[in-house]
Amino acid sequence: MIFWVSMALEIVRSIKEMQLIADNLRLKNKSIGVVPTMGYLHDGHASLIHAAAEISDKVIVTIFVNPMQFAANEDLSRYPRDFEKDCQIAEKAGAHFLFAPSVEEMYPTDFATSISIGGITRKFEGVFRPNHFDGVATVVVKLFGATKPHVAVFGQKDYQQTLVIKRLVSDLNLDVKITVKPTIRETEGLAMSSRNVYLSEDQRVQSLVISQAITNAIEAVQNGERSREQLNTILKTTLLTIENIEIDYCSAANAESLEEPELFSENESIVFLVAVKIGNTRLIDNAVWNPHSNN
Amino acid sequence: MIFWVSMALEIVRSIKEMQLIADNLRLKNKSIGVVPTMGYLHDGHASLIHAAAEISDKVIVTIFVNPMQFAANEDLSRYPRDFEKDCQIAEKAGAHFLFAPSVEEMYPTDFATSISIGGITRKFEGVFRPNHFDGVATVVVKLFGATKPHVAVFGQKDYQQTLVIKRLVSDLNLDVKITVKPTIRETEGLAMSSRNVYLSEDQRVQSLVISQAITNAIEAVQNGERSREQLNTILKTTLLTIENIEIDYCSAANAESLEEPELFSENESIVFLVAVKIGNTRLIDNAVWNPHSNN
Repeated sequence: MIFWVSMALEIVRSIKEMQLIADNLRLKNKSIGVVPTMGYLHDGHASLIHAAAEISDKVIVTIFVNPMQFAANEDLSRYPRDFEKDCQIAEKAGAHFLFAPSVEEMYPTDFATSISIGGITRKFEGVFRPNHFDGVATVVVKLFGATKPHVAVFGQKDYQQTLVIKRLVSDLNLDVKITVKPTIRETEGLAMSSRNVYLSEDQRVQSLVISQAITNAIEAVQNGERSREQLNTILKTTLLTIENIEIDYCSAANAESLEEPELFSENESIVFLVAVKIGNTRLIDNAVWNPHSNN
Repeated sequence: MIFWVSMALEIVRSIKEMQLIADNLRLKNKSIGVVPTMGYLHDGHASLIHAAAEISDKVIVTIFVNPMQFAANEDLSRYPRDFEKDCQIAEKAGAHFLFAPSVEEMYPTDFATSISIGGITRKFEGVFRPNHFDGVATVVVKLFGATKPHVAVFGQKDYQQTLVIKRLVSDLNLDVKITVKPTIRETEGLAMSSRNVYLSEDQRVQSLVISQAITNAIEAVQNGERSREQLNTILKTTLLTIENIEIDYCSAANAESLEEPELFSENESIVFLVAVKIGNTRLIDNAVWNPHSNN
């Protein structure tokens, strides 16, 4: 049993209680920012919480390892957890409330609802994690229903997820502004992830090929390359400079629609999406190249 | 083009505008009641609007003939409409706002989201209208997103729908109280429905077998009958006293779970559900028998 005593951070376990708190804040005309997480917080989450605190009066961090977005063969049971440290990080980053419901609170036995999004969910992560985005969409609507936010902050690291959530919010008339913040990286370039804890020291060094691959592809675009096949080859070739890597996908795509033209146009924003397994650890990363900015 | 000029009823076409109105009401601590309809309002709808006005400060009636809940072979294109009369009825019954978005406003071309509910949707209406409840669930979440109600009032006539919506609201943590009000009937017993307008004079008389069938079944329960087969036979036999009727289903079921035991227990609430076609017109009706009340 963990007891976290804090003057500033209020821990909420019940949906009803969370809704009452949100109602009270809204009645006082306080804006609510929410940062949905699966816990095991790192500097990437902290940057999202900071961002939420800058644009809203009160920040709710949600911590919920959502079984509905994991497949049977995935790492649900071993997903890392450290509630006490999460409380410290959330509070330090500017959170006022931590909403951490139990699985039973979120999915009682008679639960029977599922939200599906077509189109954008059908490729990349959707291919390798078939019901993943249904689980994400459903839990996001539930978390929004509990926390009643004005704004929600997500990390760019889950790039396809941010597109799915924007689609979801627009389609269901959820009056929540979706803000996406850049991926935070270790000094060497590895995108921060709770799953990095699975990596051995060797694997951590090897995993630098992921950000390197994306950097190489962006450099090629900056030098004028617009062939999708060429760009994908640059990604793949860089990734395969290490052994013991399994590529789920490494692809250039339109940054808004995720469409994959043979040849990108000069004015098209391009996202480079990578998902690999290094040992047993699945890692994803991405970056967007925008023709109108110097990136 | 119809112009409806009213001092009391405000017509809203845009989702954003509806959300702003709802936000303003909520900031002033006004409770919002919503009555979702497909228009062509009758006394049944008026009773729901009255009920909403009794339990909330401001009433929003929504009028939207939702294409997503009609199958290709159903009556979407010929569904009856009379916007001016709807405005009059809504206002007279106590509505303050009428939210009547266009199909394009609700389903822009890139719309891609669908909500599914398992279990309770799989039988009765769900068998004869396979994607109907997905369409209902999706539009209800959208309408709630636009109108931000504290309470929503639905008619018991769509009995299975009320169970589905309660499940939906609970599953998605939508903080909306669902209130169900009794079916309003013509003096002869026919449940009021916008679709009654399709009936010829003869068919209208014939259609009285529906409420008669349910009355007969309830009488049997009151006299101690608990065999589902017997009760269903009473329903069926009464319905088949007219010609030119096609029975989709006529069934006794547990009033909460819609389960169908061989023998109902003494303390079980039983719903009698009927769906038939008379000519080309599909009509549904139901009544609940409750062991603890004198009905």
